[in-house]
Amino acid sequence: MIVVMSHLADQRDIDSVINKLKNFGFQVHLSQGVERTIIGAVGDRTQLLDVGIEAMPGVEKLVPIMRPYKLASRVFKEEDTVVQLGNGVAVGGGNLTVMAGPCAVESKEQLFQVAKEAKEAGAAVLRGGAYKPRTSPYSFQGLEEEGLKLLAEARELTGMPVVTEVMDVNTLPLVCEYADVLQIGARNMQNFFLLREVAKTDKPVLLKRSPAGTIEEWLMAAEYILAGGNPKVILCERGIKTFETFTRNTLDLTAVPVVKYLSHLPVVVDPSHAIGNWRFVQDMSRAAVAAGADGLLIEVHPNPAEALCDGPQSLTPDNFTALMQELKRIAPAMGKSIN
Amino acid sequence: MIVVMSHLADQRDIDSVINKLKNFGFQVHLSQGVERTIIGAVGDRTQLLDVGIEAMPGVEKLVPIMRPYKLASRVFKEEDTVVQLGNGVAVGGGNLTVMAGPCAVESKEQLFQVAKEAKEAGAAVLRGGAYKPRTSPYSFQGLEEEGLKLLAEARELTGMPVVTEVMDVNTLPLVCEYADVLQIGARNMQNFFLLREVAKTDKPVLLKRSPAGTIEEWLMAAEYILAGGNPKVILCERGIKTFETFTRNTLDLTAVPVVKYLSHLPVVVDPSHAIGNWRFVQDMSRAAVAAGADGLLIEVHPNPAEALCDGPQSLTPDNFTALMQELKRIAPAMGKSIN
Amino acid sequence: MIVVMSHLADQRDIDSVINKLKNFGFQVHLSQGVERTIIGAVGDRTQLLDVGIEAMPGVEKLVPIMRPYKLASRVFKEEDTVVQLGNGVAVGGGNLTVMAGPCAVESKEQLFQVAKEAKEAGAAVLRGGAYKPRTSPYSFQGLEEEGLKLLAEARELTGMPVVTEVMDVNTLPLVCEYADVLQIGARNMQNFFLLREVAKTDKPVLLKRSPAGTIEEWLMAAEYILAGGNPKVILCERGIKTFETFTRNTLDLTAVPVVKYLSHLPVVVDPSHAIGNWRFVQDMSRAAVAAGADGLLIEVHPNPAEALCDGPQSLTPDNFTALMQELKRIAPAMGKSIN
Amino acid sequence: MIVVMSHLADQRDIDSVINKLKNFGFQVHLSQGVERTIIGAVGDRTQLLDVGIEAMPGVEKLVPIMRPYKLASRVFKEEDTVVQLGNGVAVGGGNLTVMAGPCAVESKEQLFQVAKEAKEAGAAVLRGGAYKPRTSPYSFQGLEEEGLKLLAEARELTGMPVVTEVMDVNTLPLVCEYADVLQIGARNMQNFFLLREVAKTDKPVLLKRSPAGTIEEWLMAAEYILAGGNPKVILCERGIKTFETFTRNTLDLTAVPVVKYLSHLPVVVDPSHAIGNWRFVQDMSRAAVAAGADGLLIEVHPNPAEALCDGPQSLTPDNFTALMQELKRIAPAMGKSIN
Repeated sequence: MIVVMSHLADQRDIDSVINKLKNFGFQVHLSQGVERTIIGAVGDRTQLLDVGIEAMPGVEKLVPIMRPYKLASRVFKEEDTVVQLGNGVAVGGGNLTVMAGPCAVESKEQLFQVAKEAKEAGAAVLRGGAYKPRTSPYSFQGLEEEGLKLLAEARELTGMPVVTEVMDVNTLPLVCEYADVLQIGARNMQNFFLLREVAKTDKPVLLKRSPAGTIEEWLMAAEYILAGGNPKVILCERGIKTFETFTRNTLDLTAVPVVKYLSHLPVVVDPSHAIGNWRFVQDMSRAAVAAGADGLLIEVHPNPAEALCDGPQSLTPDNFTALMQELKRIAPAMGKSIN
Repeated sequence: MIVVMSHLADQRDIDSVINKLKNFGFQVHLSQGVERTIIGAVGDRTQLLDVGIEAMPGVEKLVPIMRPYKLASRVFKEEDTVVQLGNGVAVGGGNLTVMAGPCAVESKEQLFQVAKEAKEAGAAVLRGGAYKPRTSPYSFQGLEEEGLKLLAEARELTGMPVVTEVMDVNTLPLVCEYADVLQIGARNMQNFFLLREVAKTDKPVLLKRSPAGTIEEWLMAAEYILAGGNPKVILCERGIKTFETFTRNTLDLTAVPVVKYLSHLPVVVDPSHAIGNWRFVQDMSRAAVAAGADGLLIEVHPNPAEALCDGPQSLTPDNFTALMQELKRIAPAMGKSIN
Repeated sequence: MIVVMSHLADQRDIDSVINKLKNFGFQVHLSQGVERTIIGAVGDRTQLLDVGIEAMPGVEKLVPIMRPYKLASRVFKEEDTVVQLGNGVAVGGGNLTVMAGPCAVESKEQLFQVAKEAKEAGAAVLRGGAYKPRTSPYSFQGLEEEGLKLLAEARELTGMPVVTEVMDVNTLPLVCEYADVLQIGARNMQNFFLLREVAKTDKPVLLKRSPAGTIEEWLMAAEYILAGGNPKVILCERGIKTFETFTRNTLDLTAVPVVKYLSHLPVVVDPSHAIGNWRFVQDMSRAAVAAGADGLLIEVHPNPAEALCDGPQSLTPDNFTALMQELKRIAPAMGKSIN
Repeated sequence: MIVVMSHLADQRDIDSVINKLKNFGFQVHLSQGVERTIIGAVGDRTQLLDVGIEAMPGVEKLVPIMRPYKLASRVFKEEDTVVQLGNGVAVGGGNLTVMAGPCAVESKEQLFQVAKEAKEAGAAVLRGGAYKPRTSPYSFQGLEEEGLKLLAEARELTGMPVVTEVMDVNTLPLVCEYADVLQIGARNMQNFFLLREVAKTDKPVLLKRSPAGTIEEWLMAAEYILAGGNPKVILCERGIKTFETFTRNTLDLTAVPVVKYLSHLPVVVDPSHAIGNWRFVQDMSRAAVAAGADGLLIEVHPNPAEALCDGPQSLTPDNFTALMQELKRIAPAMGKSIN
């Protein structure tokens, strides 16, 4: 941590900051320039956050040097984390894992049809929402437990592990009964009570990036889960909010190599939600794989025009099959094998 | 709702859209231009969201015309809503309601000192966090129930109603026992399970805008609470995420008159969290009042340099007193009286 | 400047950085922590930018400490700058200077009517565009020299100094012939050739903030003008691009006190362009004054529905008069007098 | 265009809007719903922009339906545009065109070394700045004409056409003397005087997207050049400003397939400037190609640590060679051949 003193700070201000840092056990280095005094503090990063230096008299600003996450960092664990999802499917470590299915589970017919066609096309994991976070209270909110049961049946049918969203602490045990992977939705990336509870389960967690989440905040959310005892975290980039309105959000694909540089956790990409328009899903799936993503989350619906949720961004089974055929061609060029 | 057909759409595509709209009970108007066919649909706005037109063949885009919220809209209820908080304090209707206190309740001494000084300076409501949503799992997370008890004691001491954050469904009953106003934090604006539960209580709800929330999404979150049966919603602007880094967030003061134009709900402003730097809190408090805000949420700490949370943005009691004196001078010019 | 070395940097990397810094004449301070080595460099800030440290082996990142502008900074010049516009009108120093007029000069009748009514209502400066930067090549592009002449005539008529946009280097001499104040439009904030040329004139410059400009980049643009020899810079906040779509841009009023903290230059606010909707111009004009703005730029049109440019954001003369009456009441409460 | 009338609009307001539209030659369609009246207008899109409907009494909002660009649109010209750069190099039409070189031309040695190594590695076009737009007036501003001459010499040496930035109207003739392709920098995307002048030349124009430019604004900037008579426009995505701070800007790769859907113009990607960190340039170059980009703009410097400009984002010649080898492997999988 670097403390930059104001040009108006006097010696007493400087001494106070130094004493406070020393009291907290930091080593202190002083640089007295012509215009400005700068104080470097070296010590336990987990303490740095609560020292309150920034509000002391004469302090102009505080520049953190160390990254605030530890367990999530590549420095802490050098080798890539591989997360096992069950039924022999893993994310990370040279696998390209495609998770496909409808935005929302709507009916047995809808789900089973998609599940079978996705499986045949080469998907490894079945996705589908039983609890749906919807901007409007008047929109379809999901089949809830009924949806979870259908997902479990579809797993029996196809052998694909199931990923589905858990929206709150109280339905977590129920979701754990049926799901193989717990999805934390983008709006819940910083729902810290929920993060702490999924950390206590033994399920893999797919942690979506918030549309307002910096990469650092996203890794801090992962840190909550890791620090709570669950090492099986998969990150999922799904677009951030920007001024561009043609796409629903702006897919930040650079986050893929950046996360791999900063962290050992695997990262997958959800182009469907980011873009909000099926036309560009295949192009951006390809781009995500080329950027180094460990997997994809793709919405597929047997009849997008009849979908109760997010139809415009859903691929038809035929389009999904075309995408998978292209990925099979491209994955090897990226040193990945589709699992 | 306007459906814009692609220039490649054929008559069959157009007929399919028209039939579907009619089946859902919409009145349909057709405009066939040289380059493009446009279909207008008039009907129940709550149905419009789930019709799935956008994914039909030949549809280029869908332009919603009606606002998607109903109970929150000024069209639905023309006169301003005034929310009673207890102890004779109200938000809206010509009142300027100042809510002040520490970011986090840290100790009896800290809280009581701030509460007394804030009361003396002219604050109407005591704010303070017992549960703290923190970006880092290693930061101080709040005193929890102990903090709630101290807040209730401080209410006894000062007569000020208490606003405090509720972070999840399970601690809601406990928070309701002690608090007068339930704060939904910015990160929870779209925590729909939580919104649905606070909607079932009879407590006023202070609903903070998400740093990635559009005004429309914010009003839709309010709609969840209103539709769930709780009409006592107070909106709180607290800054949105932008590329500007000098301030923590960008305070969107224009949202104040915009919300008053679109909705009947009262709106207050939290400059402390938006800016993240106490130096600019007084200026922007003044500006918020001038923009038409019904109240302010201000962080005050007896010793910001020792604060366990957000010290840099906290006013000292002296600075808060100076702010209140200025507001007393300015409020009448705005046709407001400080309550 | 702080150089943070990677945890993988070896002693040779560290020595190279130190030697390079010393060769450029910097004083160097070394902090060797357990996890990371940090090198502080103190010296001439104008050299810091081009040393190229960030690309050296073993360097993780570079943290600038000093602000990169000098002449624009409050540290360099402590007292507020007051800019004289001619005809006894000044911006800064306790004045509240209202600049009003149409987006574009359209005709003699239109301009003279607005000019007279604005003057009567209390405006001090006449604004109006003769050259209009338009997103579309098919939109009205301004009356050009004819517009400049009309502006000069309107100045004769009303005694108000005239501010008008200069869009490129070649038309600068012509604009200088007629205008009292040169406006640099938001899209030209970083048109460095233009900045260098207006720096050579003796005209006051109204420098609009780019919709993508950070406060620091804005002050660096001002630095171009100041360093080029023209000290008469007035900053103008006019909204930045964010994800919010209800308003055209997001007016960043916090930039007003921030700029006054960082710089000695006066700052005015243009709510008309920021918001794009006349309904909210009066509210946000009030808020701008309360935030500490030295003036306002307001669009007024005799008949907004017939305006060739930006009608929706223009006040009618009646609405402008109402605004001025309110400002006359509020300015004294802010310690300002309308000039 | 759709005109949405306010729920408070009366018949007179509606009639006025209809009459005005008819006077401008539009066909009008009326939809009178229970809550709202909606007026559809069909006609010449280039007139729509200046009608001023939005400011008429009773009008709530105006929803444009037609895209505001014409010559740039895929509807106007269905087949892909291929732009010839000279020396047999083309952009578009199945080519993957790599443009490489230093951010700034610094010296004969530096430029020639990079040019030769880039050529050998497989680059088709030489990039290099002779005029440099720099945020700070104290930074190196380029070698100007001397730099242009060196670029022309490097072309002789290597046979690669040269792309270099033109920053203003007055230096345009000089730049045209030496350059094969005129680059319009991101800050000048809406420098309309400059756009109009490059439109009069016969040189291909590489039009960078502004960091605050929507895709629509970018295509409108292209429309200026096309409408001015120059059909040889190449679009270049180079990152937009968002709240994410780890990368310099956020590379919006989805813009690539979106632009190809909306327009016939070729689009290339500059990952170096977008990211600001060489570590991620190779990953994102791959991703850009996979997203469908027609080419890449890559910064290469013989010794990034000594670069006078943007060293941290420059590849060494070795890293560039590694990138080219990977692209040669990947391009065929995308149906592209490196030219």
